[in-house]
Amino acid sequence: SGGTMASESEAQRALQYEQTLMYGRYTQDLGTFAKDEAARLRLQEGDTPRSRRPSELLEYSQGRCAPCRVCALQCQRFLISKVGEDWVFLILLGLVMALVSWAMDFAIATCLQAQKWMYGGLDTNVLLQYMAWVTYPTVLITFSAGFTQILAPQAVGSGIPEMKTILRGVVLKEYLTLKTFVAKVIGLTCALGSGMPLGKEGPFVHIASMCAALLSRFLSLFGGFYENEARNIEMLAAACAVGVGCCFAAPIGGVLFSIEVTSTFFAVRNYWRGFFAATFSAFIFRVLAVWNKDEETITALFKTRFRLDFPFDLQELPAFAVIGIASGFGGALFVYLNRKIVQFMRRQKTINRFLMKKRLLFPALVTLIISTLTFPPGFGQFMAGQLTQKDTLVTLFDNQTWAKQGISDEFEYLGILEAWHHPRSNVFVTLVVFILMKFWMSALATTIPVPCGAFMPVFVIGAAFGRLVGESMAAWFPDGIHTDSNIYRIVPGGYAVVGAAALSGAVTHTVSTAVIVFELTGQISHILPVMIAVILANAVAQSLQPSLYDSIIRIKKLPYLPELGWGHHEKYNVRVEDIMVRDIRYVTLNCKYRDLQQVLHSTKMKNLPLVESAESMILLGSIERTQVGALLSSQLSPQRRLMTLRQKVLSEDGHRLSDSSIRFQISTETSSGTPARPALRKPLKPALKRVPSSPPDSPPSGSTDHTGIALKSLFCANAATEPTEAQGTAYHKAKRVRISIVEEMILGDKMTPAEILEWEEQQLDQLVDFSSAKIDPAPFQLVEHTSLHKTHTIFSLLGLDHAFVTSIGRLVGMVSLKELRKAIEGSLTGKGVKVRPPLASFRDSTASTTEADTTALRQLWDRHQHHHMPREAGPGGDDDDDTPK
Amino acid sequence: SGGTMASESEAQRALQYEQTLMYGRYTQDLGTFAKDEAARLRLQEGDTPRSRRPSELLEYSQGRCAPCRVCALQCQRFLISKVGEDWVFLILLGLVMALVSWAMDFAIATCLQAQKWMYGGLDTNVLLQYMAWVTYPTVLITFSAGFTQILAPQAVGSGIPEMKTILRGVVLKEYLTLKTFVAKVIGLTCALGSGMPLGKEGPFVHIASMCAALLSRFLSLFGGFYENEARNIEMLAAACAVGVGCCFAAPIGGVLFSIEVTSTFFAVRNYWRGFFAATFSAFIFRVLAVWNKDEETITALFKTRFRLDFPFDLQELPAFAVIGIASGFGGALFVYLNRKIVQFMRRQKTINRFLMKKRLLFPALVTLIISTLTFPPGFGQFMAGQLTQKDTLVTLFDNQTWAKQGISDEFEYLGILEAWHHPRSNVFVTLVVFILMKFWMSALATTIPVPCGAFMPVFVIGAAFGRLVGESMAAWFPDGIHTDSNIYRIVPGGYAVVGAAALSGAVTHTVSTAVIVFELTGQISHILPVMIAVILANAVAQSLQPSLYDSIIRIKKLPYLPELGWGHHEKYNVRVEDIMVRDIRYVTLNCKYRDLQQVLHSTKMKNLPLVESAESMILLGSIERTQVGALLSSQLSPQRRLMTLRQKVLSEDGHRLSDSSIRFQISTETSSGTPARPALRKPLKPALKRVPSSPPDSPPSGSTDHTGIALKSLFCANAATEPTEAQGTAYHKAKRVRISIVEEMILGDKMTPAEILEWEEQQLDQLVDFSSAKIDPAPFQLVEHTSLHKTHTIFSLLGLDHAFVTSIGRLVGMVSLKELRKAIEGSLTGKGVKVRPPLASFRDSTASTTEADTTALRQLWDRHQHHHMPREAGPGGDDDDDTPK
Repeated sequence: SGGTMASESEAQRALQYEQTLMYGRYTQDLGTFAKDEAARLRLQEGDTPRSRRPSELLEYSQGRCAPCRVCALQCQRFLISKVGEDWVFLILLGLVMALVSWAMDFAIATCLQAQKWMYGGLDTNVLLQYMAWVTYPTVLITFSAGFTQILAPQAVGSGIPEMKTILRGVVLKEYLTLKTFVAKVIGLTCALGSGMPLGKEGPFVHIASMCAALLSRFLSLFGGFYENEARNIEMLAAACAVGVGCCFAAPIGGVLFSIEVTSTFFAVRNYWRGFFAATFSAFIFRVLAVWNKDEETITALFKTRFRLDFPFDLQELPAFAVIGIASGFGGALFVYLNRKIVQFMRRQKTINRFLMKKRLLFPALVTLIISTLTFPPGFGQFMAGQLTQKDTLVTLFDNQTWAKQGISDEFEYLGILEAWHHPRSNVFVTLVVFILMKFWMSALATTIPVPCGAFMPVFVIGAAFGRLVGESMAAWFPDGIHTDSNIYRIVPGGYAVVGAAALSGAVTHTVSTAVIVFELTGQISHILPVMIAVILANAVAQSLQPSLYDSIIRIKKLPYLPELGWGHHEKYNVRVEDIMVRDIRYVTLNCKYRDLQQVLHSTKMKNLPLVESAESMILLGSIERTQVGALLSSQLSPQRRLMTLRQKVLSEDGHRLSDSSIRFQISTETSSGTPARPALRKPLKPALKRVPSSPPDSPPSGSTDHTGIALKSLFCANAATEPTEAQGTAYHKAKRVRISIVEEMILGDKMTPAEILEWEEQQLDQLVDFSSAKIDPAPFQLVEHTSLHKTHTIFSLLGLDHAFVTSIGRLVGMVSLKELRKAIEGSLTGKGVKVRPPLASFRDSTASTTEADTTALRQLWDRHQHHHMPREAGPGGDDDDDTPK
Repeated sequence: SGGTMASESEAQRALQYEQTLMYGRYTQDLGTFAKDEAARLRLQEGDTPRSRRPSELLEYSQGRCAPCRVCALQCQRFLISKVGEDWVFLILLGLVMALVSWAMDFAIATCLQAQKWMYGGLDTNVLLQYMAWVTYPTVLITFSAGFTQILAPQAVGSGIPEMKTILRGVVLKEYLTLKTFVAKVIGLTCALGSGMPLGKEGPFVHIASMCAALLSRFLSLFGGFYENEARNIEMLAAACAVGVGCCFAAPIGGVLFSIEVTSTFFAVRNYWRGFFAATFSAFIFRVLAVWNKDEETITALFKTRFRLDFPFDLQELPAFAVIGIASGFGGALFVYLNRKIVQFMRRQKTINRFLMKKRLLFPALVTLIISTLTFPPGFGQFMAGQLTQKDTLVTLFDNQTWAKQGISDEFEYLGILEAWHHPRSNVFVTLVVFILMKFWMSALATTIPVPCGAFMPVFVIGAAFGRLVGESMAAWFPDGIHTDSNIYRIVPGGYAVVGAAALSGAVTHTVSTAVIVFELTGQISHILPVMIAVILANAVAQSLQPSLYDSIIRIKKLPYLPELGWGHHEKYNVRVEDIMVRDIRYVTLNCKYRDLQQVLHSTKMKNLPLVESAESMILLGSIERTQVGALLSSQLSPQRRLMTLRQKVLSEDGHRLSDSSIRFQISTETSSGTPARPALRKPLKPALKRVPSSPPDSPPSGSTDHTGIALKSLFCANAATEPTEAQGTAYHKAKRVRISIVEEMILGDKMTPAEILEWEEQQLDQLVDFSSAKIDPAPFQLVEHTSLHKTHTIFSLLGLDHAFVTSIGRLVGMVSLKELRKAIEGSLTGKGVKVRPPLASFRDSTASTTEADTTALRQLWDRHQHHHMPREAGPGGDDDDDTPK
């Protein structure tokens, strides 16, 4: 703050009118002021050389260029202050994603065109044609699979399950990196360019999220506002909406779909972000199409032209309801089939082993089978095999009735519609074959390890099913059902729209597919049939199977909290005391290091409760397992041992060093930590923010009885961990001291193993000094009679991992995600991924210990334990940190 | 549970095949089982006489009717188990609301028809015509105002602000009752039937919520699932969606609008409820129109017929953006104007006093002015005064261009379009006059104390403004902007749609008006212009003014938490320690009654923290103020005094009663509480659920030193407050004892005032026994460095009222809604309404102390304090509870 003031006055000297600006700022609202201030600070940090040379600036200001420079400075300042704004970020995100989406669509279209061209050019020889038809997608898919495998295996699949988990607050490593972004974009382009029944939506949610994460990191180079974690989560949520929005040019549906798919609780204040970014993105996406002369103006992606005045008859509603219910069963079947295929591939050990060796064989094989079956001159002629996904949708949403009773022969299948027409069969057969074949093909294709989604294939199948029902209705009632004056024929295209929305809604368990359908087709006239069908489909599908994304989450064993589901009233009756773990390990305030060791041995809990004493059991806070490990390893560290040794030697040497000096060395040693965990100190901030400026007062760790002191220091200070400005010099001193210790260490360990053992046993009997440990001072607490429903709500709302159950301050148990999950659904376990709650992290405003630290610590601790165990039986190896003997 | 088993076995005896059912049930999922079980219990409760006479049932089962009876029983059981389902509730809600909406629309249309008919019939005399035109609405509005005033003043206004507050967790009395429902429905019908510029949407949200609350109460007669508070809140959220959905036949827009307007955090699991109910409701609403032959089939409410192939040109987008920005300013102005009118009416004391006396004068006056100005032969001819709101919208969304350059004269205004045509002026003038007049009229009309909303008037103004811009564009570019082969004329109706969405979005601060517009018009082709305009309007309006609903919340001083707003980054930098109250009163575990008295005197906090001791400050829990008052008043109660007296007399009488017997009496007296608060015992459940079954062990409150006992009893039991089955007999005994005490009391108080004072002083020096107090064992805790942003999130998420700030178990401060609100926006206070958090109430699973209890207690306490204060100076009155002397 002092430095800021100084540089501010320098700036004022340079720009004379700054004073008034400063004055005026306080009348502005706080937000603007804070932003300006932060931008100013940022600027000054970036411009340190210049601000350190005010004379230089002064010289310039005397010269001719002064106004220009001032102006440029102002502009720069303005721009940088604006970079911190949400809307700049959202516009950039929307722009980038629209460009990516459009470029990808262009590339995919080119790929498909090339295949068509090859296939068309070789029409003299069916074998060559077949080779071209089959080889092209096989090569593309294999490349895609190989490329993603090599660059970033995280890019495989939809990405929505992972985004759901990430937004739940779990850190999935490598899922939001540039490498994954590149792998996903290129892999997806190739996969979709192959013409396989794969989708773009899911991966696009992932791509947009990665884009947001990268953009956020990029912009944080300019402004300081992008470093907030809570804000990044909010931006990721907006990015998900952008992903869907620019994929389908469906801003509203995109926002809703992303909310339904990724969130449990949605902050309405994030709503505008999603809308803003998705609208902008969709707008640019469609403008690019106009600019590319694909369209005359901005319109829907799959524009329909159903009649407006009488879209459907009231008496057709049962047919729509049938579509909804059938789609519900179909959607559940799709999810089941998809899961079974994955599980079959995993369970068959011989297949599995073979596929593990030849990773690219499975994709190639699947592509070969599917493209063989769709070969137009072959079986493909019965299932409109030559049509791309886009063409299929366009034809299915077509305004005409294909199977007109009586006049069926006269009806001409024009253009791409021809694909549905087969001279020796009728449209119904083609549609049924199409639906059946595409169904298993899509379920199979989405298990290929390439970036791909399942939304679009399912959407197409749904549209075909709807069309089938519609055509049947049209055949049944050639002149419509309506018996009044006007004849309104049935519009099978409307049925296709309803079917598409219903089936995709059933598979994803969302209602917003209805909105997506309206935005995709540009017509909302079928709103009630679509809504009814989607709701019925959801009702059926949700009672039979989890959503496709939840199914993948289960398959991948991602850590998640299942939903309570529709009206599960019994959740109101189960209480925390019924599900909580009663027998939990805890750390007491007056425990010994030996107790810590025992606790670490006996439990695998990530967070240990800290209680006042075993008798009172009053919960004081929570301490991370790694912190306990660090405390223990620091107490038993060779450095400390050597220090003791040296101290002993020195004191034996005739008290050459005064007592206070030794104490000082010890205390600084404690503060600087062991060399084996240099990265640990940074994320560790004291649990209390107010740091008393008396570091020499920190308790000497050698004393055997300091319960009172430890308690006092716990409550008043753990300043030792953070080198503040005041401590700076002391810290540097400590560094020098440590260097000398290390030197001594290199000279040789003068203690025998037996001595070491004795020393360690002695150390373990000392009382723990918690002053250097990071303690979460307010872990989340529940009480015994909290209902399961409320517990679930709290866990979802706050993204909790665990909560302690207390009874008037007394710790009585613990509930973790695991217990909750078990209570809700049975016994599904997901482990191996560290759960970090995004909102619950408000308790420790510093960044949580990073993965690297944890593993480093773990290794240290494991090695120590490993060495320690045999030593108890007899004299063992040394405790050298660098090379285990 | 024992009783359940018994009656189950009875039922099994009666129905022989129950056994298999029982067996099969365990293989069903838990949900079904629990539901069946609950239904069974319900049934048995309702059928107690029958289940007590199994022999009777057995007799029947032998007879001929047995299968019938069994079948009937089964059916009944099935129905009752189904009544508990969400979807039954939602269907009923949707059905009822659709019927209400339709009936109301029908009544309103009839009212408007009647006015038109009267006006048309009197066309011979302008004065009579004027009288009819003016009197009719004045009478209706006056009736509406008077009716609501008399029946339920809570029905006045929109209702959305109140619903927002209720969903935030605040209990607003009388806002969800049958009386308010009736008042709102009838009042709204009359108000809208008058033809004033008033809306239906806001009140409909309120009506739907009341309908849900009443339906919930009604259905709870059948099933036990409607008694859960959290569930009721969820149902209210769905009801809000239904309200909008069946008002505009806009299910999707309804859900989104209700989310945006009422929620801060939205549980996605509630999403389907809203969609389901709103869709069903909208469906029935539109089916009723078809059934009534108003429509041929289900279509949109204000169906447009814009061309599909080229809805708008890319180059028209700037015009749409202009509409958006102007609407933003207009919306902010509307909110400002509306607030200023209310504030003006309140501030002018003479006006205010006059209006208070003649409550119905203001509505009548406003109606008179507005209807005079819209009188068609008068000024109304320049502003299409003869059109109803619905007709206005239909004409504004019209497909034709009114002001065709050159061919303007040839264009024929047909039907209701004629209203916009004036022989001596052109359409632009009419539109401008319409917009200006309607603007202030609507702002004024919505302040009338009748049930009314502002959405629809604003929507109409927005449409007119959009039309104005559209007509101007059409005049400017007669052949459209597009310069390619085809000529696409500009569609002013499209501009009207955009304007309507933008202005209503700006006033309500919602984006979902876009969706409502699509559903209202049945066309989505203008999606991008609408979205762009709505987002721009929101951006402008949100930076200038609060939303209309928030503005009303502020005017009405409802307790609420303001939003953080767009990108207020400084919220990430403000920390809890900057805003928390440090100097808070607390209760220690080992305090005396005198300390309680002091605490109650010195603070007005609703919840007091309970700490271990003043030295350690370890937070153990939170105790309600009323509980502290109860403890104190129980300690100083005359009953207790008389008991002491009696005890003394008895002991002086030669120890006639054994010591244990006296103790028992005292302890039961403590448990049964004072007669002045008989209702208090019911909502009070022990903080700990596990009740040790040893009521005679409860500590004798007469002993002077029982710190250890109090602590122990605090941690182990406060069983005394809940008469469990085991305690039943003891409780009855206590009752008898109390009766004898009361008898004695009537016989006369034998202590002199000086003696009473002495006794009370002595009592105040005793240590507090917390065993009978309800303690919240896990109040929400924050730490000092929690950011304001996170604090806001937590408060919104959990609906908190206050949170204690702790530092490793130590209490250091407190943050309440007040501090948070101040920190966010300045110094706006809302008080007088008790904030009860819905989700935070998970901590005390019992219902919170009811308002009645609180006031009763308060009176008792106030009186006591009042009597006590002068007594300290000298001898004062008695402590009789019934009549203050």
